Amino acid sequence: MTETTYAKGLEGVVAAESEICRIDGEQGRLYYLGYSIQDLARYSDFEETTYLLLYGKLPNRGEIESFSKRMRISRDLAPEILDMVRNFPKEAHPMELLQSVVSYLSGYVQHKIQHSATCNCRDTLHQVVQLASVVAAWQRFHEGKDYIPPRQDLSHGANFLYMMRGEEPDEYEGKVMDTCLVMHAEHGFNASTFTARVVASTLSTCYCSISAAIGSLYGSLHGGANERVITMVEKIGGKDKAAAWVNQALDNKRKVMGMGHRVYKAKDPRAIIMEEFLLELSKRKNDTSSYDILKEVEKTFRERMEEKGKSIYPNVDFFSGGVYNLLGIPKILFTPIFAMSRVAGWLAHILEQRRDNRIYRPKSLYVGRDAREYVPLEKR
Amino acid sequence: MTETTYAKGLEGVVAAESEICRIDGEQGRLYYLGYSIQDLARYSDFEETTYLLLYGKLPNRGEIESFSKRMRISRDLAPEILDMVRNFPKEAHPMELLQSVVSYLSGYVQHKIQHSATCNCRDTLHQVVQLASVVAAWQRFHEGKDYIPPRQDLSHGANFLYMMRGEEPDEYEGKVMDTCLVMHAEHGFNASTFTARVVASTLSTCYCSISAAIGSLYGSLHGGANERVITMVEKIGGKDKAAAWVNQALDNKRKVMGMGHRVYKAKDPRAIIMEEFLLELSKRKNDTSSYDILKEVEKTFRERMEEKGKSIYPNVDFFSGGVYNLLGIPKILFTPIFAMSRVAGWLAHILEQRRDNRIYRPKSLYVGRDAREYVPLEKR
Repeated sequence: MTETTYAKGLEGVVAAESEICRIDGEQGRLYYLGYSIQDLARYSDFEETTYLLLYGKLPNRGEIESFSKRMRISRDLAPEILDMVRNFPKEAHPMELLQSVVSYLSGYVQHKIQHSATCNCRDTLHQVVQLASVVAAWQRFHEGKDYIPPRQDLSHGANFLYMMRGEEPDEYEGKVMDTCLVMHAEHGFNASTFTARVVASTLSTCYCSISAAIGSLYGSLHGGANERVITMVEKIGGKDKAAAWVNQALDNKRKVMGMGHRVYKAKDPRAIIMEEFLLELSKRKNDTSSYDILKEVEKTFRERMEEKGKSIYPNVDFFSGGVYNLLGIPKILFTPIFAMSRVAGWLAHILEQRRDNRIYRPKSLYVGRDAREYVPLEKR
Repeated sequence: MTETTYAKGLEGVVAAESEICRIDGEQGRLYYLGYSIQDLARYSDFEETTYLLLYGKLPNRGEIESFSKRMRISRDLAPEILDMVRNFPKEAHPMELLQSVVSYLSGYVQHKIQHSATCNCRDTLHQVVQLASVVAAWQRFHEGKDYIPPRQDLSHGANFLYMMRGEEPDEYEGKVMDTCLVMHAEHGFNASTFTARVVASTLSTCYCSISAAIGSLYGSLHGGANERVITMVEKIGGKDKAAAWVNQALDNKRKVMGMGHRVYKAKDPRAIIMEEFLLELSKRKNDTSSYDILKEVEKTFRERMEEKGKSIYPNVDFFSGGVYNLLGIPKILFTPIFAMSRVAGWLAHILEQRRDNRIYRPKSLYVGRDAREYVPLEKR
């Protein structure tokens, strides 16, 4: 390639090779290390999927038992971390807290391991596990309630719901929560994963890299789509108003949230599973209001697009907010939950980056002014 | 450009246009917004340079008075932040603490300002100012001493030394410290600045972006060069042993730290100023031991390179560690001090990124395996 390829936003540039994630947007397929997201959602759980991402293979019984145990004993938060969560200003966003806590946690791990560039992130699973505990604790304190210590007999997703609510979720809720974490654990290169890799490429620690990635995910161009879908559902207010709302939005060239995807031209496979969860949960909770509104939005939107010869499907964010809502999770936690899940993928990318590292060092093109004389203060 | 330019580490790719920094490596010149680093080092100070970087021009008297006042009243640390510093595990690195504190600080600013993607980082100078206070406080606690509240009548550099030592530095020391901050405030695209821009490109906050950049700077391929120079000086132990040490290092193809620069082919202009500081401070403190060793290293190294027809100069890191040492600053603070200074440049780049934003979204090339069947646990 030439010395001076200019690619604003790095568009069209391949920055690295990767073995972790394959997205087949035409066919609507997503694979982690070759395993389809449908299979992982149905048969796996978040702990096993994390193992798969970090080791590149499915664990045998001994491996998953030891890995799962390491994750579960790391769930409880140290008193200093609880203080950070408790003292964090009420009006601030939990994503900022998460970013802060992950950096701070790095002080608590064995430093001989952690400070080496070749540190095995797989030994210190704090940063994977404790995100969930911090999010749950933040919500408890935010509601003026006490911290609920973790339980070791629950899955990662079920334990999160338990720590947040203070009571054990039923089996189906636990499965849904855990599977949502599986489905968001990895999705190839995107701004947060790229951020994690850029930081890792300086041979910084996995904590520093993940903290940085959380900062990226907080950006409104990256995370937050499912939050905006629920805001839309709230604005619409009822199934009977959905068609008119969508028509008006499209007439006024406003964006309908959660429809279409930059990569998936066929239906996002995660959206299919998420829709099933939303329907089943809605039935079990006798509250189909969000589901009904969403389906009406989808129907109207797709009809309007088909008139233009376009086939556009809802994406995973279209249904996930409704699922989280029915699990009792407030909107402000949607992006933190994304981080709780994606941290597994970030770690996988950090490890991959280290295996064949080159520091990311693009150039900039100087378009500023020529040299000028310094003018003393009294002459300005 | 083609759709599939592969540029490992983004080498040779121009990722953005920038007006902030010009480096003329051939001539050994460095400019911030058109002003030479020599002029800024001689006539400006860290507060004025920060203003220049954030506003693109030198301030008039009214502007600098109000800006400087805003910076100085932000120096003191909140009790919760002091707790974070105090509770941070002793064996952990202050860079991790800095990264954590910057994210945490974002909870303390007016959120209507801060959470908007167009937030004016220039109003909330916490993240610039408080880094210095956190570094000083960390050092105090690390030595088992009390926090020293800041003074508003000192320059940014002098106040840092005051908060770290508990006594006021003399005028020359204050000027040297402040000028070191001026000289490290900006240096174009590099991994940490690029990280700040990647995070900013998601429309995340300036705090999140700077926190991420700190994580990058902590990487051993990025920050830490001056720390390694001082370690080398300590290993050499005396002027009379320097020539032999360098010869042996070169014979064994070991790297001599602080010599040469990826960008500067002529002498790094900051190295010239830093060398003057080191010589003058050494005389004033009656301790020329580091200076003598360094000059002997330089002489031997340059002679050996000249034999091969190469002209390689010492860079800024070659002398800065010695300067910091004579100011009473321990090695572990060298990279945190780099962050205290570079934060001004990071902010300038965040603002520039926002003015003409496109999210950084490079691609990856999938080189992993084909789809495979999920194997149940009992069959693995």
